[in-house]
Amino acid sequence: MTKMIKLITAPLYSLVILMGLTSIGNAETTVSAEVGFIFNTLLFLICGFLVMFMAAGFAMLESGMVTSKSVSVICAKNIGLFSIAGIMFWLVGYNLAYGIPEGGYIGTIIPWSDSSAIETGYSDGSDWYFQMVFCATTVSIVSGAMAERIKLWPFFLFAAILAGILYPIVMGWQWGGGWLAELGFSDFAGSTLVHSTGGAAALAGAIIIGPRLGRFTKSGAPAPIKPFAASSIPLVTVGVFILWLGWFGFNGGSQLAMGTAADAIAVSTIFINTFLAGAGGVMAAATVTRLGFGKTDVVQMLNGCIGGLVAITAEPLMPSPLAAILIGGVGGVIVVYGTKLLFALQIDDVVGAIPAHLFAGIWGTLIVPATNPDASFSAQLIGVLAVNIFIFIVAYIVWSIMKATVGLRLSKEAETKGTDVSETGVIAYAIRD
Amino acid sequence: MTKMIKLITAPLYSLVILMGLTSIGNAETTVSAEVGFIFNTLLFLICGFLVMFMAAGFAMLESGMVTSKSVSVICAKNIGLFSIAGIMFWLVGYNLAYGIPEGGYIGTIIPWSDSSAIETGYSDGSDWYFQMVFCATTVSIVSGAMAERIKLWPFFLFAAILAGILYPIVMGWQWGGGWLAELGFSDFAGSTLVHSTGGAAALAGAIIIGPRLGRFTKSGAPAPIKPFAASSIPLVTVGVFILWLGWFGFNGGSQLAMGTAADAIAVSTIFINTFLAGAGGVMAAATVTRLGFGKTDVVQMLNGCIGGLVAITAEPLMPSPLAAILIGGVGGVIVVYGTKLLFALQIDDVVGAIPAHLFAGIWGTLIVPATNPDASFSAQLIGVLAVNIFIFIVAYIVWSIMKATVGLRLSKEAETKGTDVSETGVIAYAIRD
Amino acid sequence: MTKMIKLITAPLYSLVILMGLTSIGNAETTVSAEVGFIFNTLLFLICGFLVMFMAAGFAMLESGMVTSKSVSVICAKNIGLFSIAGIMFWLVGYNLAYGIPEGGYIGTIIPWSDSSAIETGYSDGSDWYFQMVFCATTVSIVSGAMAERIKLWPFFLFAAILAGILYPIVMGWQWGGGWLAELGFSDFAGSTLVHSTGGAAALAGAIIIGPRLGRFTKSGAPAPIKPFAASSIPLVTVGVFILWLGWFGFNGGSQLAMGTAADAIAVSTIFINTFLAGAGGVMAAATVTRLGFGKTDVVQMLNGCIGGLVAITAEPLMPSPLAAILIGGVGGVIVVYGTKLLFALQIDDVVGAIPAHLFAGIWGTLIVPATNPDASFSAQLIGVLAVNIFIFIVAYIVWSIMKATVGLRLSKEAETKGTDVSETGVIAYAIRD
Repeated sequence: MTKMIKLITAPLYSLVILMGLTSIGNAETTVSAEVGFIFNTLLFLICGFLVMFMAAGFAMLESGMVTSKSVSVICAKNIGLFSIAGIMFWLVGYNLAYGIPEGGYIGTIIPWSDSSAIETGYSDGSDWYFQMVFCATTVSIVSGAMAERIKLWPFFLFAAILAGILYPIVMGWQWGGGWLAELGFSDFAGSTLVHSTGGAAALAGAIIIGPRLGRFTKSGAPAPIKPFAASSIPLVTVGVFILWLGWFGFNGGSQLAMGTAADAIAVSTIFINTFLAGAGGVMAAATVTRLGFGKTDVVQMLNGCIGGLVAITAEPLMPSPLAAILIGGVGGVIVVYGTKLLFALQIDDVVGAIPAHLFAGIWGTLIVPATNPDASFSAQLIGVLAVNIFIFIVAYIVWSIMKATVGLRLSKEAETKGTDVSETGVIAYAIRD
Repeated sequence: MTKMIKLITAPLYSLVILMGLTSIGNAETTVSAEVGFIFNTLLFLICGFLVMFMAAGFAMLESGMVTSKSVSVICAKNIGLFSIAGIMFWLVGYNLAYGIPEGGYIGTIIPWSDSSAIETGYSDGSDWYFQMVFCATTVSIVSGAMAERIKLWPFFLFAAILAGILYPIVMGWQWGGGWLAELGFSDFAGSTLVHSTGGAAALAGAIIIGPRLGRFTKSGAPAPIKPFAASSIPLVTVGVFILWLGWFGFNGGSQLAMGTAADAIAVSTIFINTFLAGAGGVMAAATVTRLGFGKTDVVQMLNGCIGGLVAITAEPLMPSPLAAILIGGVGGVIVVYGTKLLFALQIDDVVGAIPAHLFAGIWGTLIVPATNPDASFSAQLIGVLAVNIFIFIVAYIVWSIMKATVGLRLSKEAETKGTDVSETGVIAYAIRD
Repeated sequence: MTKMIKLITAPLYSLVILMGLTSIGNAETTVSAEVGFIFNTLLFLICGFLVMFMAAGFAMLESGMVTSKSVSVICAKNIGLFSIAGIMFWLVGYNLAYGIPEGGYIGTIIPWSDSSAIETGYSDGSDWYFQMVFCATTVSIVSGAMAERIKLWPFFLFAAILAGILYPIVMGWQWGGGWLAELGFSDFAGSTLVHSTGGAAALAGAIIIGPRLGRFTKSGAPAPIKPFAASSIPLVTVGVFILWLGWFGFNGGSQLAMGTAADAIAVSTIFINTFLAGAGGVMAAATVTRLGFGKTDVVQMLNGCIGGLVAITAEPLMPSPLAAILIGGVGGVIVVYGTKLLFALQIDDVVGAIPAHLFAGIWGTLIVPATNPDASFSAQLIGVLAVNIFIFIVAYIVWSIMKATVGLRLSKEAETKGTDVSETGVIAYAIRD
């Protein structure tokens, strides 16, 4: 499977070499197989723990964005989904994705087990760890959008399905060497496979569960802001910084190798573009909100950063620094206006996950051919449509079935009291003078 | 000394090789001594900074768990104890542990100094750094249990004794090649040596200092919860995520080598088991509290994660993924019921450190023989008893002497006002509308 | 350029070798050029992401230190300045610093582009990334000192100038091989170049903008503390722990190489000294405030940690452990009394950035010759004076021009309402029972 991934990403290297790195490119690598094995494994482990830490970032971002009556539950959701996702990805997910036949649609259900051999070039376990935190990230995206009205355990059930089945299927289509990979679709680190997948599942869920009580007026006139004010902006901020940090692992590790000088250079380029796209997203959102709406909206700057990062994730290697800033900047603008669009549609996405992950993910995936000549717009479009429509429809069905059976939404009374009281029985903040 | 450690852990490798990695295991390593030296040093440094960051995790976990009147002092304690522990471990502790005679009981008091040589296989300084953060972790465990009523500087004095003398003694017994190592005791990364040691010292202290005013009713009827409500659940959450992150360094770095493909595979396996045990602890605590007590207690999920991680720490290499989930899961259950037990015994452990570190540490150490055929239950039992009884008794004596001399407990007036006012003069939260 | 840096730091290595590492020093390195290239690049990337994460540390430290009316804006400032600094350092800064003629004063304005070749020994992009986060750190230092009364966008403008022009100029003087390097000035990781530069720019700004309304009484009698109470001590604490973590990257990465055993040993030594200096700063501040003023001031302990870290940054390789503790300890004391000095001078530095970064940076730079025989006190003094006077004067002029043109200070009404309302329109904390 990984060889297939390599085939997909290979053209990128060769271009890096053409870009002037001939002194490296022409030489045969002088790194022994075992040393290369250790470097590659180290890349997976380091980038893996960075991505793992993104779980803390999502937990803080979401804790800060919800009202103070739903913070404990968001914390429970985030640590719970991460646990569930990891267990499911071991039990079912990994082989559903990587056990896929060449050009196929789905793998088989066998729990992952270690099959490391020096010929594979890296420790199989380190790859599992790295892929697992990607799976968990996908699920993390969903938890915030439906906050403050969804029951905890039905959410956990959906997390298990998304981590164990839905995400692995689309992951296999591309990274397992399935039909999308064969088609020539290009998604380096998962703008579509991870971020849009999470965003599309969240969109389906937000539609089915409906908005929080009193969030929208029937007339369309703006509802009062205060009852829905974010509980803590510094927690959102530290969450976004943690996510930005984790993204170096997310994109950098997706190079999948660190055992040659060319790979080391590629990872460095990815770090730079990942940084610059986030920066572009921040400043684009700052500028747009300041010029367009009078105040520099810090929440949009923070979500704009995520939007910029999501946008560059489909192709963090090929863009020039300027292109990375622009791709990220557009991602930030998409977040600002995407948030407004959802509000106008009366879809209540508590943390802005849908604009940042779904909308910016679409943008990032479609713009790949602008910097990567090996990608084609038509393949990108097919991939975007296939993944998003598949995930949206299946998630919509799953959410609907759950709504009709176990139930999704808290009672009005519980929602009014706050999910913290009704679901965990633990108040999030107890601050006394 | 480290050679002795290698002898202890060596059987684990050979098993990994037997498990099918023959293509790696049969080949002689092709990594040169100097490259291996750099890889090993890098492992210590990377894992060391991850463990160092656990100090932030403990600080946040404890800040969030205490009432809002004692948060500043908890912050002062955590940054202070980390500083004290590091200085003492350099001045006294390192050589007390590693200067131990083979099969012996205690080393000598000489400050650590660098004696790197390429033959040792890694930089001596990187090993000191890695061992030092373990020492600091041990002390961190104590700080939360006695919160909200202990004076700051007596705590610092105990921290110096624990970091400089008590922990190094038991550390030397095993990792310095002392009598426990000779006996065949097995504690890969310190379920007993680090976590139970911290927990046993905390238990002794919590008994001697007594509970917070009004925490328990004489009748045994439940006291009102509100006055003792945790100040901030999101801070507890980010603390636990940071600890989980740090634990990859804690357990992964305890492989002590990264200079061969076999070591790289072992570190990967350790990452996976460390992740899965934490996940098991989270979901076990969630399930038990939901089914047993009606609500899904987020605090127990978070502490259950710690319990799961502590449990796997004695043997993170040998278990299969399923075994890791189960070992961690039992750790999580132990945390839930251990917390109830302490409450019934009217021992006031503010942050749940004793169930998570002492009780789960005992479980994790005793279960090692189930997955590691080179360990014996009798040696494990002797090790658990020796370390915990030694630490508990000596800590009990030290706390008692301190109580009788410098005094341990704040005045009633100071405790009622809150430790923040009385000890640091800095209010933790000043939030105005 | 980097060769020049190597020439500057080379004497340090040779001393390390003289210190007894002959078994390593005498042998020719056995690491192949490509393997060394990967190790060096890996050092830059790992240390780079650690330093990048310091942005979160500054954001949390400052969020916690300001009053709760100015937290959202501090978050906006921190994520914004980081983005601006990175973009400017790519567009202008890097080549202004590294394009400097030998022994010269300023480079040229060309955007950075990748020119990696295996002969340089590391990926050019990884070096850019590492240098960029240093640049961003410099700007981060400024944001807190002028908090609660400065307008957001003028601050962003200054951030662009500092990151794009001022910092690169002084950086080039030394690390680009300019006149200070030729003079024999020694500043391993930037006590002066980064920290004093940030501190001097902050001092100029704090003087020009003046104190917050009501901060100082005309009579000099102490103003009431409560209106200016720090909003959240645990956020300050996690911020400092993040900064401490990041500092291992800051100082460790400044070794600039990890491709030989000698380099690996040097990085380990730097980690140890960085840790111990921070520890010394914490405990010195704790002791001084407890003995001098009755209470153990947690804020001073936390800022004392920063002071200790800043002090060791000029020379983290040569000091013995004891020397590192002392150098850091004096840094901590400087922070305590420096804070008092600024208060007496009625200069309102909201977060204590000037004592921690400027004052402790001067101390750390001047004490280098005590442990590094290749440094001279006269060269250190010239460097300290040149950088600080240059930055202070130019920053003073820039701030003055901005004050007279775009305006720096919020209206009285806006300041009274709080910068969060006036600048971002987002309340930082919305906590309801």
